[in-house]
Amino acid sequence: MVKSGDRVVLYGEDGKKFIVKVESGGKKGTHLGVIEFDEIIGKEFGDIVTIGKTQKSYYILPPTYIDDVFSMKRKTQIIYPKDSSYILMKLDIKPGTRVIETGVGSGAMCAAMARLVSENGKVYAYERREEFYNLALNNLTEWGLADRVELRLKDISMGFDHSNVDALLLDVPDPENYIHLCWEALGGGGRLGVICPTVNQVSAVLEKLYEYPFINVEVWESLMRQYKPYPNRLRPVDRMVAHTTFMIFARKVNKFLPTQ
Amino acid sequence: MVKSGDRVVLYGEDGKKFIVKVESGGKKGTHLGVIEFDEIIGKEFGDIVTIGKTQKSYYILPPTYIDDVFSMKRKTQIIYPKDSSYILMKLDIKPGTRVIETGVGSGAMCAAMARLVSENGKVYAYERREEFYNLALNNLTEWGLADRVELRLKDISMGFDHSNVDALLLDVPDPENYIHLCWEALGGGGRLGVICPTVNQVSAVLEKLYEYPFINVEVWESLMRQYKPYPNRLRPVDRMVAHTTFMIFARKVNKFLPTQ
Amino acid sequence: MVKSGDRVVLYGEDGKKFIVKVESGGKKGTHLGVIEFDEIIGKEFGDIVTIGKTQKSYYILPPTYIDDVFSMKRKTQIIYPKDSSYILMKLDIKPGTRVIETGVGSGAMCAAMARLVSENGKVYAYERREEFYNLALNNLTEWGLADRVELRLKDISMGFDHSNVDALLLDVPDPENYIHLCWEALGGGGRLGVICPTVNQVSAVLEKLYEYPFINVEVWESLMRQYKPYPNRLRPVDRMVAHTTFMIFARKVNKFLPTQ
Amino acid sequence: MVKSGDRVVLYGEDGKKFIVKVESGGKKGTHLGVIEFDEIIGKEFGDIVTIGKTQKSYYILPPTYIDDVFSMKRKTQIIYPKDSSYILMKLDIKPGTRVIETGVGSGAMCAAMARLVSENGKVYAYERREEFYNLALNNLTEWGLADRVELRLKDISMGFDHSNVDALLLDVPDPENYIHLCWEALGGGGRLGVICPTVNQVSAVLEKLYEYPFINVEVWESLMRQYKPYPNRLRPVDRMVAHTTFMIFARKVNKFLPTQ
Repeated sequence: MVKSGDRVVLYGEDGKKFIVKVESGGKKGTHLGVIEFDEIIGKEFGDIVTIGKTQKSYYILPPTYIDDVFSMKRKTQIIYPKDSSYILMKLDIKPGTRVIETGVGSGAMCAAMARLVSENGKVYAYERREEFYNLALNNLTEWGLADRVELRLKDISMGFDHSNVDALLLDVPDPENYIHLCWEALGGGGRLGVICPTVNQVSAVLEKLYEYPFINVEVWESLMRQYKPYPNRLRPVDRMVAHTTFMIFARKVNKFLPTQ
Repeated sequence: MVKSGDRVVLYGEDGKKFIVKVESGGKKGTHLGVIEFDEIIGKEFGDIVTIGKTQKSYYILPPTYIDDVFSMKRKTQIIYPKDSSYILMKLDIKPGTRVIETGVGSGAMCAAMARLVSENGKVYAYERREEFYNLALNNLTEWGLADRVELRLKDISMGFDHSNVDALLLDVPDPENYIHLCWEALGGGGRLGVICPTVNQVSAVLEKLYEYPFINVEVWESLMRQYKPYPNRLRPVDRMVAHTTFMIFARKVNKFLPTQ
Repeated sequence: MVKSGDRVVLYGEDGKKFIVKVESGGKKGTHLGVIEFDEIIGKEFGDIVTIGKTQKSYYILPPTYIDDVFSMKRKTQIIYPKDSSYILMKLDIKPGTRVIETGVGSGAMCAAMARLVSENGKVYAYERREEFYNLALNNLTEWGLADRVELRLKDISMGFDHSNVDALLLDVPDPENYIHLCWEALGGGGRLGVICPTVNQVSAVLEKLYEYPFINVEVWESLMRQYKPYPNRLRPVDRMVAHTTFMIFARKVNKFLPTQ
Repeated sequence: MVKSGDRVVLYGEDGKKFIVKVESGGKKGTHLGVIEFDEIIGKEFGDIVTIGKTQKSYYILPPTYIDDVFSMKRKTQIIYPKDSSYILMKLDIKPGTRVIETGVGSGAMCAAMARLVSENGKVYAYERREEFYNLALNNLTEWGLADRVELRLKDISMGFDHSNVDALLLDVPDPENYIHLCWEALGGGGRLGVICPTVNQVSAVLEKLYEYPFINVEVWESLMRQYKPYPNRLRPVDRMVAHTTFMIFARKVNKFLPTQ
C-alpha cells in the first residue's frame, strides 16, 4: 500500500513515466494537471489513479533504480544501466562491500552501488566540483541512500582518504593519472573498474595498469539491443545506442609474481 | 587475512583460476600438486603462495560471484554474467527484495540474487528435478547463501506457493505456459523477467503477456564485446559469444487501464 | 576531366553532397544559388568549384553507387549499402550474371546489380505497382543503367517470365508465397536471396525453403558500426542502425539427395 | 551443363564443400575415394554425383567467389567476405574500374576485385614477398582472372608505378607510412580504403590522412551475425566472429578548400 512519504512512479498509457513523492494532504501541479496526493496514498502499487481535469489514468508503480535514474536531475553524462549493471557485477558489489567511486557527477552510479552495499557496507564517493557534489547529495537524499554514502568534496589528485577497499570505480577525464592511487586504496584482491569513452584512453590506462601489480586485466564494452515487442512482427528496433564507454577491469595484488 | 573456512581463488600466471576452501590443517591434492592449507591461512588476500614440488606461484584472491560461477559444479546451461547482471538491474534486486526464481538448474542465478537480497530479503527458488535441486542446494550451501534461499522441489505447473513478490524470473523451456501464474504471484508493480533462447519463444511469451495486465514490456539481448588488452595493439578479440538468450521484461499491474 | 553530360557530386565542407548532371551551357538554381554548368565542365574531378553569390566552394567528385543511392528520388524503403553489398557477394553478382530482382521499388538494388552485370549480363526486374515501375525506370535511365535491366510491370504471383537465372533476389512483403516460383526460375546451383525484416518472416520463409530442393540455407544480418574519425579521441559513434533486415540465402539444386 | 575444364563445387550433405577442375578422362584421388571426372562432365549444375566405393552423393554447384575463397590455398590472413563485400562497394569497384591493391597476400581480395572490373578495367596488384606473389599468381590463374590483374613483385615503399587510378586498397602492416603515395596514385575523387586490425593503426592512419587532401573520411567495422536456420527454434548462432579489421575510407581531392 502506498504510504505518505513514498516515492511512486506514475506510468501513462504512452509509456511516459514520472516520479512524485506523495505527502499526506499535499499536491503537485504538473503539465497533466494537479495531482492530489491523497488520491494516491492508500492505493496499492499496480493500481490506477486518474489525474486532473482530463481524468487521464496512470498506473502507480514502485520506482526501480532504472526509473530513478531516468527521472533524476542531472547535469552530467550518466553511466547507462547497460554498463552500470555489468560494473556492479564485475566489481562484485553486494551487501557489506566497501567501495570508492569517483567522480560522482549527478550521483547515478553512486546510487547504484549504495542500493546494494546495505547498512554494513559503504560507498566512499569523491567529487571535486561543488556543483556536482551538491547535486549528488540532493539526489542521494531524495532516494534515501545518503546514509550509505560518505560523499567527499575533494580532488583525487590529492589522494584518497580511504584504503583497503574492496572495489573502486574510476570515472574521470584523465584516469591514467590516478592508477597508482587506485592501487594504494584497494585491498589485496580488490576490484578496479575504469570508465574510458575513447580507445586512446583505454590504451593510456592499460599502459599504466601494467606498471603496477594488477592482474586479470580485461577490456569490455556492452551492446544492448532492444526488440520491438510485437509477437507477429518481432524485430530489433531500428536504431540503438552504439557506444557509451569502454570498461576496464583489473584486480589488485600486493606484488607481482617473481619471474619464473 | 585469510582465515580457516574461507574460500579463496588461486590465480595462476596463465590466467587459470581455481577455488579451494581452506581448513586449518587440511590439504588438497590437485593436478598442481598438494596444497597445504596452512600455507594459505594467515596470508593476506593479494599475496602469493607457492604450491607443490614445482613451487609454482599463485595469487590468493577473494572469490567474486563471477569466479564462483565459472568454477562451480554444473549440469545445466547457466545464465551468463552479461545477462544475469542486466536481469538483476531490470528486476531491481537489492537488499530486502523478495523474488521467485525458476527453474533453478545448477543454482547460479539463484546465487546471484541471494547475494543481493541480504538477510531481510528472500529468494523463493522452484526446481522440479531432484537432481538439480540437490546440486543447487549443494552449491548454495558451499557459497554460504542457503539461508537466504527457500529452495523448493516442485513443478511450477502446480502453481507458486508464494505471492505478492517484488520480482520473478522465469527460466523454463515453455515459459508461455506460466505467464498467468507469474501474474498471480507478483505484487502490484512487480517486475517479471523471462529467459527465451529462441525468437519463437519470445513471440509466444509476448502473446501471452498481452493477455494479462502487464505493462512496460521490453525485449532485450546483450552483446558483450571484449578487447585484447594490449595498449599498442588494442583490438576486439577475434571471436565472441553471439547469443545466449533473449530477455523479456514486464511489470505487473492490477488491471488494465480502461480504454480511453 | 568533367564533360558535358557527366553526373557529378558537389561535396561541401559540411559533408553534404548533391548530384547534378552538367550539360554544356546549362545551369541549375539551387538553394545554394545558381550553378553555371560551364564552370564545372572542363575541370578535373577532385577540383573545386565556387557557387552562387556567396561563392561557397565545393569539391567535384565522380558519383559512386552510394552517392547515387543517397541522393536518388525514392518512395520506398531501400536496401542499405551494408546489406546490398553483402547480397551482391552472396549472390555472386558479376559481369555476365543473369539475375531476377523483385520488387524493384525505387530501383536502388536493381541499380546495384546492373552496375556489375555489365553488357553481357542482365537484371530481370519485376515490379507490380506502376508508380514504382516508373520511378525505377527514371532512376535507372538517369544512372545510364537502363539497357542492362529488363524492367517488367508485373505481379510475380503470375510467375516469372525468365528461367535458368544465376541468381534471384526476393524482396516482397510476403516472400514465403513465392519460394516455389523462385525455385523454378533459378538454374541448377543458382543463388537465392530473400529480404525479411521480421523474424516471423524468416521462420515462414525457412519452412517453405525446406519444402523445395534448396541447400546451403543461411540466415544473416549485418551490423555496421562507424567510428568518429578523430585520431586522439577515437570511439564508435553514439548511435547506429540496429536493424534493417534479415537476409536469407540458399542455393537451388535439381532434386534432393536420396536419403542415405 | 558441366564441361571439361570447368571448376565445380562438390557439396556434401554435411555442408562440406570442395572444388575440383574436371578434365575429360581425368580423375582425382581424395579422402572420399576416386572421383572420375567423366561422371561429372555432361551433368547439369544442381545435379547429384556419387563418388567412390561408398557411393556417397554430392551436389554439383558452380563455384561462387565465397566458395573459391574458402577452398583456396592460402598462407596469409585473408579479408573476410563480410569486409571485402563492403570494401568493393565503398571503393565502387565495377566493370571498367582501375584499382591498385597492396599487399596481395594469397590473392583473395585481388580476385574479388578482378571478378568485377571486367576486361575493360584492371587491378594493379603489388606484393613485395616472392612467396606470396607466386601463390597469388597461381590462385588468380586457377580462377581465370590473371588477365585482369597486373601483378607486380615490388615493395611499395619504392612508390606505385600506376597513377590516376579510380580506387586503391592499402592492406599492409604499416599503412600510415604510405598515405602520401596513395594520394599521389589516386585520380581526383578517387576512393581510398585502408585495412587496420588495431585501433592504434586507425589513429595513426587518420593522423596521416588529415595531412593530405583527403575528404569524406570514415571508419567502419562490420559485424555479421548468423542465425541457426531452424524455423521453429530460430536464434543467432552461439559464437560469431567479433573482429577482423577496421576499415578506413576516404576520397582524394586535388587540394584542400581555402579556409572560408
